Amino acid sequence: MELYQRDDRRAVLWEQHKPRIEEALRAWQQRTYWFAYPEDTKAYPEAEASAGEADFKAQLGRPFDRLRQGGRRWVVSDEVSPYTREALGISYPQADVGEWIGAAEEALRVWRWVPWTERLGLLMESVARMAKRFFEIAHATMHTTGQAWMMAFQASGPHAADRAVEALAVAYGELSHIPEAAHWERDFGRSKAVIDKYFSPQPVGISLHIGVSTFPVWNVLPGLYASLAVGSPVILKPHPRAIYPIAIVVAILQELFEEYRLPSSIVQLAVDTVAQPVTRELAEHPLIKLIDYTGGNEFGTYLEALPGKVTFLEKAGVNGVLIESVEDIEAVAKNLAFSASLYSGQMCTAPQNVYIPREGIKTAMGTLSYKEVVAALQRAIEDLAAHPKAAPAILGALQNDTVIERIERLSAQVQVLRPATAYVHPQYAAARTLTPVVAEVVEETIARIEHFGPRLLFVPVDDAREGLLRLYQDAREKGMLSCAIYSTDRAFRQEAARLLIEAGVIVSFNFRGQVFINQSVAFSDFHGTGANPASNASFTDSSFLTKRFHWIEVRDCLAG
Amino acid sequence: MELYQRDDRRAVLWEQHKPRIEEALRAWQQRTYWFAYPEDTKAYPEAEASAGEADFKAQLGRPFDRLRQGGRRWVVSDEVSPYTREALGISYPQADVGEWIGAAEEALRVWRWVPWTERLGLLMESVARMAKRFFEIAHATMHTTGQAWMMAFQASGPHAADRAVEALAVAYGELSHIPEAAHWERDFGRSKAVIDKYFSPQPVGISLHIGVSTFPVWNVLPGLYASLAVGSPVILKPHPRAIYPIAIVVAILQELFEEYRLPSSIVQLAVDTVAQPVTRELAEHPLIKLIDYTGGNEFGTYLEALPGKVTFLEKAGVNGVLIESVEDIEAVAKNLAFSASLYSGQMCTAPQNVYIPREGIKTAMGTLSYKEVVAALQRAIEDLAAHPKAAPAILGALQNDTVIERIERLSAQVQVLRPATAYVHPQYAAARTLTPVVAEVVEETIARIEHFGPRLLFVPVDDAREGLLRLYQDAREKGMLSCAIYSTDRAFRQEAARLLIEAGVIVSFNFRGQVFINQSVAFSDFHGTGANPASNASFTDSSFLTKRFHWIEVRDCLAG
Repeated sequence: MELYQRDDRRAVLWEQHKPRIEEALRAWQQRTYWFAYPEDTKAYPEAEASAGEADFKAQLGRPFDRLRQGGRRWVVSDEVSPYTREALGISYPQADVGEWIGAAEEALRVWRWVPWTERLGLLMESVARMAKRFFEIAHATMHTTGQAWMMAFQASGPHAADRAVEALAVAYGELSHIPEAAHWERDFGRSKAVIDKYFSPQPVGISLHIGVSTFPVWNVLPGLYASLAVGSPVILKPHPRAIYPIAIVVAILQELFEEYRLPSSIVQLAVDTVAQPVTRELAEHPLIKLIDYTGGNEFGTYLEALPGKVTFLEKAGVNGVLIESVEDIEAVAKNLAFSASLYSGQMCTAPQNVYIPREGIKTAMGTLSYKEVVAALQRAIEDLAAHPKAAPAILGALQNDTVIERIERLSAQVQVLRPATAYVHPQYAAARTLTPVVAEVVEETIARIEHFGPRLLFVPVDDAREGLLRLYQDAREKGMLSCAIYSTDRAFRQEAARLLIEAGVIVSFNFRGQVFINQSVAFSDFHGTGANPASNASFTDSSFLTKRFHWIEVRDCLAG
Repeated sequence: MELYQRDDRRAVLWEQHKPRIEEALRAWQQRTYWFAYPEDTKAYPEAEASAGEADFKAQLGRPFDRLRQGGRRWVVSDEVSPYTREALGISYPQADVGEWIGAAEEALRVWRWVPWTERLGLLMESVARMAKRFFEIAHATMHTTGQAWMMAFQASGPHAADRAVEALAVAYGELSHIPEAAHWERDFGRSKAVIDKYFSPQPVGISLHIGVSTFPVWNVLPGLYASLAVGSPVILKPHPRAIYPIAIVVAILQELFEEYRLPSSIVQLAVDTVAQPVTRELAEHPLIKLIDYTGGNEFGTYLEALPGKVTFLEKAGVNGVLIESVEDIEAVAKNLAFSASLYSGQMCTAPQNVYIPREGIKTAMGTLSYKEVVAALQRAIEDLAAHPKAAPAILGALQNDTVIERIERLSAQVQVLRPATAYVHPQYAAARTLTPVVAEVVEETIARIEHFGPRLLFVPVDDAREGLLRLYQDAREKGMLSCAIYSTDRAFRQEAARLLIEAGVIVSFNFRGQVFINQSVAFSDFHGTGANPASNASFTDSSFLTKRFHWIEVRDCLAG
């Protein structure tokens, strides 16, 4: 029995991309070093770099007219470059919520009946086309998020694309392990039963994806591609201050869908403004069944409580570091200073609290006092922040003014060792910059709140065991997306690993050199665990896919 | 880094059972005819049959003293044989909710750190030991549920055991595709980063399993084994009128856990009585994170709304049949009469509404009028109900008196064609029996409610298309666990399949002879889809496992 709407051209696309997706699935299963798209800009043709820059410049101040979707009006976005402080002046088409939902409903009727093989072929192709536009996406990301150039390129380009391929690879694994059809026979002696069985993976419903201003592509692609892979059309509601980077991706997908005789409304960009948000109206719509979201706790908790929705949430957490003992404090300090400074601490994985035993710590060169550890870390931050090349390359700029306000509020409540100060950006004099505040925090109530932005807080504890317990409690009760422990003591590491696994947090031991706790790499690291209050999902485990669809069976009895 | 508590004896058990679980996983992936335990009683030693009967008789009227769990008091259960109408007189140990939770918490600390391989070995072994007690379980099932002997044996014995093995096989698939450890290396040119990564699957928390009186083993085993496989201890709260069959399984597991130096409280039997239920107190406890449940809608909806719980629910539905055209109406009538009569309609998959076009249906021997179709079905029910051997073997007995009351209430509201009457059981004169009421229902409000029990309702529709639409609406809005369509028209079947797949229901075409829509077989059929209001889970798809655990990662940096 033919259930699907098949298409030869789409089938060819699948055959073309199948070996690569199989390779990606094997990588995901082995979890050793692998990538689909290289992170080095030099790996891409020079022509793409210059075209990307030209496209970016040409787009500024003009309507974004690449989308294949209707609209009632053009809305000028709230996007402002954190570097120039000038509005990007880009307008996007906007429709009403009912129109977006209606178009998604129509798309669902088609997309769910495209065989998953053809869907995966199209989606792999879209990532390949996105790679041709990495440079424009990078410029768009830099000038909406405030990320430094290299980070903007990597995070919104190859790293995001890899997470998309990862989601597609996991989808491939989950969709292919049940056959499309099975021939079932049973001999009853006097009679023989013959049943043709069909197994169809069907999406839970229409998806809403709510983007975040700091990572408008990286945090969106896993859920976007996971939903599309299982046949769910996606309404993508970007953050009003970071639309452009993901709009490029949506335009690529829409163009591809049209090219392959499918409705472009399989994915729609649903823009709103800071003044007139539409997210609640979208989220509460009864036809929206799947919601992906990255952002603050309050809104996340609201989404989680909506009845009849499956949610994939990344919320705030209080990330912690514990220094129990080290080989070399300078290496540790340098590594942590980088992690705290990267993108001015505007990463969900940036460290906030550093628990340091009052009794000091052991090193290869004898014991260091609490004060000496603090001094080493503070010095490393200072060195980085004062470095004329490192500061702009690592810190970048602040996405918005509330980060400054938040860090000012924090500074007023703690024992500041190093104040947060602006640095002068060599290229962009107007850039909104802030180097990390370094402070000591004794009050638990302050340490147990996320102070998103450039900060590193030292929290004295009686001993390493108390620090471990604090990490455990923070992870369980407040949520945690990254957790670093420095210890040269094998038994302590083992104990810490077990305890923090029970708290549902990813633990990183002794990160130094070129590896940073902020980073989680596709095909090897899970991002988020879903097991503590900071997230209820993980990039990318099986659940991230399987919660989005159901297997529906058809049994056709040929003989009883 | 060693995270687990390993044990050589348990590891041996795993090696022993590994080939079989791998075979089961392949069967689940192929979905052709396969079973782990034969359903024919003759496949088991005669000695087991007689021992099972003796054990059953010896247990009646006595404390069930095989459990390895503490208790504050012995509680005489509400179990009454639907055949003899005599109380079984079995008492079970009962503790307080806090004590059960406390013991489960302690068990969690141990069980989560037993490697999943060892867990699966133990659990496969427990099913093998259960198989040795299929006969006692069958007697216990017959005399608590009212199922006829053969059904009691198959449903609570081999079929349930197969569903347990299936859950373990899917767990094996999901747990084995991520490695326990990976060695990650990346060459940065001037330096090389080396990270040992560990991936630990960790349970969401403690499980509560709420049993049902009609299928006290079959509906429990999938969730029970799925939770245990991922390291979640289970508090099993059986239905107060059907404790004995599953108590045998719990005793086997507890004995095995003790034998392998593990806490017997990894699974606990939490009995209550009709007069003093404890389910809400258990379900609302903050440490209960996973809830499996089979039963009515009202309580299911209450459970689904509890914050912070992952639920696996099978609730009520309104199962439908549509007759569009047939080869041979007698074959169809016989098949449907069996399906409606099996266990007196007390199956979640029993058909209720038969939609028949007023314009009649096509057959190989010309058109049959609506009245002729109705007459054929009614006759088939009558033949079965009046047959002195078939009636007891197929209908069995009613689990409780409320089924009678429900069918009486229904009969008063509809056009009864054949009244529900008792039949005389040849062995048990006191048996609570009722043959199906056969009626015509014109009022939609009556047809759209589940009337759980022996009934078959004819619902006239203008044509087959209207019937299809009614099935679609019933499935979407009221829920459906089985749906049968009879049609010799290939195009109609295809259209029906697509529409009903969109409604999230399993569709069965032209079931006849020895295949019945009530049945869903492990390793080939999904039971429930999770995609319509009758269930939010499926036996056994990947989600049934993956929702119960998270992957937690540890990264140990050896070089930066």
